Amino acid sequence: MYTLGELADFINAEVIGDELLNITGLASSTNAQKNQLTYISSAKYKSDLINSMAGAVILTKDLLDDCPTNALVVDNVYLAFAKISHYFKQQPTHLNGIHTSAKINSQNIANSCTIGEGVVIGKNCTIGANTTIEQGVSIANNASIQANVTILQNSIIGNNVVISAGVVIGSEGFGNALDSQSRWHSIAHLGNVMIGNDVTIGANTVIDRGTLEDTQIHSGVRLDNLVHIAHNVILGANTAIAAGVTIGGSAILGKRCQVGGGAVIASHMCLADDVVVTGASTVDKHLSSGHYTGFTSISTHSNWKRSQFWLLKLDKIAKYLNITPKNLKRK
Amino acid sequence: MYTLGELADFINAEVIGDELLNITGLASSTNAQKNQLTYISSAKYKSDLINSMAGAVILTKDLLDDCPTNALVVDNVYLAFAKISHYFKQQPTHLNGIHTSAKINSQNIANSCTIGEGVVIGKNCTIGANTTIEQGVSIANNASIQANVTILQNSIIGNNVVISAGVVIGSEGFGNALDSQSRWHSIAHLGNVMIGNDVTIGANTVIDRGTLEDTQIHSGVRLDNLVHIAHNVILGANTAIAAGVTIGGSAILGKRCQVGGGAVIASHMCLADDVVVTGASTVDKHLSSGHYTGFTSISTHSNWKRSQFWLLKLDKIAKYLNITPKNLKRK
Amino acid sequence: MYTLGELADFINAEVIGDELLNITGLASSTNAQKNQLTYISSAKYKSDLINSMAGAVILTKDLLDDCPTNALVVDNVYLAFAKISHYFKQQPTHLNGIHTSAKINSQNIANSCTIGEGVVIGKNCTIGANTTIEQGVSIANNASIQANVTILQNSIIGNNVVISAGVVIGSEGFGNALDSQSRWHSIAHLGNVMIGNDVTIGANTVIDRGTLEDTQIHSGVRLDNLVHIAHNVILGANTAIAAGVTIGGSAILGKRCQVGGGAVIASHMCLADDVVVTGASTVDKHLSSGHYTGFTSISTHSNWKRSQFWLLKLDKIAKYLNITPKNLKRK
Repeated sequence: MYTLGELADFINAEVIGDELLNITGLASSTNAQKNQLTYISSAKYKSDLINSMAGAVILTKDLLDDCPTNALVVDNVYLAFAKISHYFKQQPTHLNGIHTSAKINSQNIANSCTIGEGVVIGKNCTIGANTTIEQGVSIANNASIQANVTILQNSIIGNNVVISAGVVIGSEGFGNALDSQSRWHSIAHLGNVMIGNDVTIGANTVIDRGTLEDTQIHSGVRLDNLVHIAHNVILGANTAIAAGVTIGGSAILGKRCQVGGGAVIASHMCLADDVVVTGASTVDKHLSSGHYTGFTSISTHSNWKRSQFWLLKLDKIAKYLNITPKNLKRK
Repeated sequence: MYTLGELADFINAEVIGDELLNITGLASSTNAQKNQLTYISSAKYKSDLINSMAGAVILTKDLLDDCPTNALVVDNVYLAFAKISHYFKQQPTHLNGIHTSAKINSQNIANSCTIGEGVVIGKNCTIGANTTIEQGVSIANNASIQANVTILQNSIIGNNVVISAGVVIGSEGFGNALDSQSRWHSIAHLGNVMIGNDVTIGANTVIDRGTLEDTQIHSGVRLDNLVHIAHNVILGANTAIAAGVTIGGSAILGKRCQVGGGAVIASHMCLADDVVVTGASTVDKHLSSGHYTGFTSISTHSNWKRSQFWLLKLDKIAKYLNITPKNLKRK
Repeated sequence: MYTLGELADFINAEVIGDELLNITGLASSTNAQKNQLTYISSAKYKSDLINSMAGAVILTKDLLDDCPTNALVVDNVYLAFAKISHYFKQQPTHLNGIHTSAKINSQNIANSCTIGEGVVIGKNCTIGANTTIEQGVSIANNASIQANVTILQNSIIGNNVVISAGVVIGSEGFGNALDSQSRWHSIAHLGNVMIGNDVTIGANTVIDRGTLEDTQIHSGVRLDNLVHIAHNVILGANTAIAAGVTIGGSAILGKRCQVGGGAVIASHMCLADDVVVTGASTVDKHLSSGHYTGFTSISTHSNWKRSQFWLLKLDKIAKYLNITPKNLKRK
């Protein structure tokens, strides 16, 4: 907990309002409550600002008139947020063996595990060798967790979850702010990972924690090996993701989606329920229910070269032949 | 071992035939022997059913007339198979240290390793810190295994094999059956991973075990980092797979194939000997010997946008210009 | 250290010159000094040969006339180099606990770590459970290293570096030479990994060591999860690579580049400073500063099928319509 004045000092901000207000945490502009700090990085989000219930808002001078609460005025809002996020991040508190405060209701826990402060593990769980579970993690009943798994602070895991070898849950999201010298400043991710019941996670898959809210893997989800789930992704119930898929930050997939191996889903994409994406496809648009595909079909190397040559000239060809979108529709 | 009647109870099946038959395991319809159970999930496989040597077959009512042996009649065959597979799966038997029954003929085994029941390790092997080897694994001579590796039950590994840090061998395949409420039921994978001699496996690569038969990595294969090898894949001798490649279930690659980094090979594809696949390509067809490519060549973002715009209109353009496959051939 | 004559025996080479010359190591043809051995694998590199300062060169007979120094004459130069590289490779020297020669100036080192001979760790570092650090590694101040990380021999890591769970640094590059029976012979990679200051590395990412020179990750770089960095890659300062990216051997990226998730950068590509590559793109050309893209945009499966059908016929269509690159330019 810091006062607004202390936080202002950390980032060289000007305080407009109550310097002595206690700030207990960070939250998004739509979720922040009276003792929380939020940020508005662009005039695009002006309506969020006007309606914010936050105790204080990091913003630029030009948005001050629309701020209904206390403010920290800075030049680079996102950078200020990145810097301040680290003051609210917990450090790992425990590196050796099983912490005395952990409540473990299962027998089959390997001696070589490292289990942190306040961890709760339910009944009938198995945890393999050299698995590390940081402070505040909660695992319900019947978990089957293999060797060499790492579960980071405060992750919440439901019943009947299978976590294969080498999985990492709760890693930091890939959020970075640029300063004026083009240097990156990492954002400390303060959200958690929430995993429902009956979820299966394949080997060496990684699930990042959310920035402010949680990354959510709903009940019944199936994740194959070497999948990347970025910060703030939401996977709806019974969605299945095959191996090698990369899902970018804040992408939302509905229920019962199926994504084939090696696909890439761009950040912020929204997929409805029952979307099927063929393996190796790139999802660069929002998708309603249906079957979608997007990759280049294999052919001999020489034919591929020729077709790519002309692909990149299609616009010129269309002009040469006087083909316009209108003409095509008319016919 | 269960009687056919017990197995029927597990999945609410109707037994047609000998309820007291002892079933010792599951096998594919073409391999199952007289004390093994198999399944036929569709009328497509009727000839396999007719010729099956299995002790019993899980099938739907309509295939009963073609069944030459005992049967378990159910509505959803694949789901019944998924449920029954778990009754034949071994649980990990050992979580702490080196099991007294392990036969280890090498000196350089890190103290922090976990080595299961009945594991056999040959001469002149090195095994790095925190590596976990489950029950029944067999490793021949001269293996060089790095730290944080996980080798799951009953994997068989030949001579002179290099396994880099973070590798997982023998993880469960991504096979799941849907029930009537669109919930996934994992299939317990009962096949193993078989790795030949002189194989090299890169860091954080994952090789899944087979469903009923084995995943096979033949002698002389080279796997780079972060490669995914799905259940029942067969890689022919001296085939080389570069980093980040995703190979789907039951894909078969011949000898001396070379697959470039980041490629995706769809499930069930067959590649002949001496196939070369350029990196980043998607293999969505069976391939005979030769050099194949399939990806979109890089260009400026604006040119890419234009060419993709017209790519998705090619069918309309062809109609507009009265181009048909026949016309193209005539010329 | 071996004499040139001993090395010749290892690979059945003919020595031309001083058999008693002491060879202390291998180096590239442009860097090798008077007690180092190099190789010239093709007449393409004749000028490198002529200007080489190396103590000796592995080459084929036809290049002997251009060799200014001692030579080892063989039929297959690259294969001879692969075989000889193993004579200069250090084996891991330590498997259990913290070596007495390690100089560790930090408190927060998990007891379960394995730390090798001569390792140096600076001030204020945290190292999580089951992390393995091989001999000769040097880590500067303020490193934050999570659990289950593997850092291989002689890697050099700067100040303020974050290494997430499951990361592997210094793994062998994917360099292999073919013999006359189409069998692969791995090259022992003798270069190191050099990581600058203020670098962040995401979970389960892998960075290979260089073949003869070092793989270089310059200061301020951001790497997300499940990224593959091949041997001899150079990433310029403040470059950011999103999750699931595969970067092939010897690719060079300038400063402040941004590569989106799931992209593939082919071996030997050169990207200038300030290149932006959209996620899922394949970089198959050298790139000057700018924004580049190359993937197939998603569409319905049926539209995708139609557009791919015609894409592979574009060359025929162009001929059918008498479209040539010249015609397009004229218009």
